Amino acid sequence: MTKKNKSIPSKEIPLGFVDRKEKELLVRDFLISVIKEVMINYGFQNLETPSFEYTESIGKFLPDVERPDGGVFSFKDENKWLSLRYDLTAPLARYVAKNFMELPKPFKRFQLGTVWRNEKPGPGRFREFLQFDADIVGTNNPMADVELCVMISEILEKCGLDKKDYTIKFSTRKLSEEVFEKLNIESSNLKLKILRSLDKIDRLGWEEVKKLLSTGRKDKSGDFTEGANLSSKQIKIIEEIFFLKKVVPAKTADEIKIIKDYFKIFDFNNYSFDPSLIRGLQYYTSIVFEVNLNFEVKNDKGKSIQFGAIGGGGRYDDLVKNFGNFDCPSTGISIGIDRLIYALLQKKNFRIKSLKPVVICVFEKENLKKYIRILKILRKSKISAEIYPGEGKLKKQLEYANKIKSPAVILYGENEIKSKKIKFKSLETGKEKLVKIEDLPNEIKKITH
Amino acid sequence: MTKKNKSIPSKEIPLGFVDRKEKELLVRDFLISVIKEVMINYGFQNLETPSFEYTESIGKFLPDVERPDGGVFSFKDENKWLSLRYDLTAPLARYVAKNFMELPKPFKRFQLGTVWRNEKPGPGRFREFLQFDADIVGTNNPMADVELCVMISEILEKCGLDKKDYTIKFSTRKLSEEVFEKLNIESSNLKLKILRSLDKIDRLGWEEVKKLLSTGRKDKSGDFTEGANLSSKQIKIIEEIFFLKKVVPAKTADEIKIIKDYFKIFDFNNYSFDPSLIRGLQYYTSIVFEVNLNFEVKNDKGKSIQFGAIGGGGRYDDLVKNFGNFDCPSTGISIGIDRLIYALLQKKNFRIKSLKPVVICVFEKENLKKYIRILKILRKSKISAEIYPGEGKLKKQLEYANKIKSPAVILYGENEIKSKKIKFKSLETGKEKLVKIEDLPNEIKKITH
Repeated sequence: MTKKNKSIPSKEIPLGFVDRKEKELLVRDFLISVIKEVMINYGFQNLETPSFEYTESIGKFLPDVERPDGGVFSFKDENKWLSLRYDLTAPLARYVAKNFMELPKPFKRFQLGTVWRNEKPGPGRFREFLQFDADIVGTNNPMADVELCVMISEILEKCGLDKKDYTIKFSTRKLSEEVFEKLNIESSNLKLKILRSLDKIDRLGWEEVKKLLSTGRKDKSGDFTEGANLSSKQIKIIEEIFFLKKVVPAKTADEIKIIKDYFKIFDFNNYSFDPSLIRGLQYYTSIVFEVNLNFEVKNDKGKSIQFGAIGGGGRYDDLVKNFGNFDCPSTGISIGIDRLIYALLQKKNFRIKSLKPVVICVFEKENLKKYIRILKILRKSKISAEIYPGEGKLKKQLEYANKIKSPAVILYGENEIKSKKIKFKSLETGKEKLVKIEDLPNEIKKITH
Repeated sequence: MTKKNKSIPSKEIPLGFVDRKEKELLVRDFLISVIKEVMINYGFQNLETPSFEYTESIGKFLPDVERPDGGVFSFKDENKWLSLRYDLTAPLARYVAKNFMELPKPFKRFQLGTVWRNEKPGPGRFREFLQFDADIVGTNNPMADVELCVMISEILEKCGLDKKDYTIKFSTRKLSEEVFEKLNIESSNLKLKILRSLDKIDRLGWEEVKKLLSTGRKDKSGDFTEGANLSSKQIKIIEEIFFLKKVVPAKTADEIKIIKDYFKIFDFNNYSFDPSLIRGLQYYTSIVFEVNLNFEVKNDKGKSIQFGAIGGGGRYDDLVKNFGNFDCPSTGISIGIDRLIYALLQKKNFRIKSLKPVVICVFEKENLKKYIRILKILRKSKISAEIYPGEGKLKKQLEYANKIKSPAVILYGENEIKSKKIKFKSLETGKEKLVKIEDLPNEIKKITH
């Protein structure tokens, strides 16, 4: 063990994690500022629950094995299990239950926060990512569901998307319930199996899903998935509703109409009703929605991919009830910020300005006071600036300025000091200019802004 | 086990964690915007390393027991241990080593991020908190150390502190080395023991620390701490240097002078040299500094407390070397954002505006379209607004508006619709006013801004 301690530790980061750099973080800061502005404008308030919750409180329970499973990172802490949150909804339900009496009803909150999934990492599949959630808790009012969609669309458009760049798909969990009733299906295991199969229509196509609904399906690797063993008559009905989308059962049609009417009075039409929309999470009780991007996105290998949803949500009327006898119908939406950034960075015309510092070169240490005077003037004029922070000759200083992609260097050597003018050089064009100190900020702004 | 799954889960959060609410988060957002503005202005770039690192990479090693200790939260992941970061400096060193060839030297980065400490929680002692770090990596230039102090002071003043509200204390690790040399102390265990004792001067007073330096000390609970067994002559020398602060050894005096000269040319004088300053972290190699607040801060029980430092830092010239043969002298500063917020909220004249929505009351659902028109006009005018999001009569709506501390409600019933004027009521004064729709935003701004 002592030997191991002396060996050189790994410079790598664990699989599924990533170092995020300036460009991505600038886009993220921009997104977050848009989100916060819109949230406040819409009357939501910020809340930040902790990273850790008791494992039992976020709906993850101890199996008979050593640790809680279900894709969470967990620790044993004095006989109780703690887990890092895997979403922001489960902690919200815990918070609402804990503070039920004091909270206004409805309670409108938003949260930005990292969530963790202890899953097998893969390309583009991370084990921590940033989520943005907005929820309206404690009301049945369908306006709440609709306003979440309207609000997300305002955020997306303020981030630079056009209407054609995204669509909000919606459906309702009641649709499948109505269909199961029609088909006389009562077993909740069977229902789950059917829903999971239907959720694969986009990825596998209808013909493959059909196999999953009947006798089973062998995938490319030869693995066999047992089928739901529905009759061909049952499958036919499912096909017409979920794949061909020709029929909408009566009760569902009523609910859909209410939502559409609200969309109409909000003058919002960037949505589509899509019966094949099945959101994975089991806690949804009626309306579900999903935010899809429509522009081309490429993966890290430059290959165009079906990017899919950047988020979604829906109504979860029974979630707070897990903590006791609370009557707390709720609805919420969740956006994967990192996925949205990934897509935005690929959108044509999306520009984010990265402000690199102007570098003031050091000729003689004795003149540092003069350099600091220039430094302070630039910074006061909101121009990012620095005196070359290392130690080295002019050549090394210019290499540094180029490396950090500085827009310009300030050259203030003996000759310039004598001439009482300051020389600056654009690192893009290579042009030099001699200016009076009082003109320097404006001259620099001409080349940086 | 099945039984347990059916029982009601805890509504509490684990000890040492906290739900952070709107007011605190608004202050935090304000601080973060100031920090980012200053950081960019000073030529630093943002970086975000992941929450998890390999345990070995952040200087925590596997002991012979089941899990890594040293106050970190750790998981076993396919035979390798992962830990949540306990600071932002250790991950930076790993990042620098990993990307050494590509990085500019010096490399100036800042990071805002949560850190986790798996320690025993107590009052005001949390197991996760937000830190802000700025580091200049890859240079010996003492200007780097000084500029970090200058920059922190600019941040604090932009956050609303006056010069008298804070002091930056500094010292150097070389001071103790020079003293140990003088006292012929070579054992690193003994050195550590002495430093730990000196670190307690502020808390215990000199007389108690003296006991720790000589034969030992019994604390209030009766627990005995073994002393360092120094001679009274040795203790006398230590007293003069670290407590009475009468003597500064020669080599230290030279280093201190260099720093003071830099402070002078930056025209910065809000510092004090304090030989008794011992920063806990072992990786510092020479200059260390600490940011102290000077105004009165009360604890949760209203009792005035010695608040102490909100952050600090110093030079760690050998940290990146842990990963191999890297020549990478570095310096950095770290600020505890949550502690700074705690103090700022208590400072007189510190105000942060919380924008609560104007609530548009719902009289008749048929008029929703008219309410939405008003809603859109207000929001476009950057006035936070919402249509009452729940379901209920006017009385319940007004209760809701009061509960969320809304500045005003909009009353647009049959009479107002007929009169073609909109009524709004200030919830602070109770006054009502009838205005034309085009005048509404300005009238509302009069009472909210």
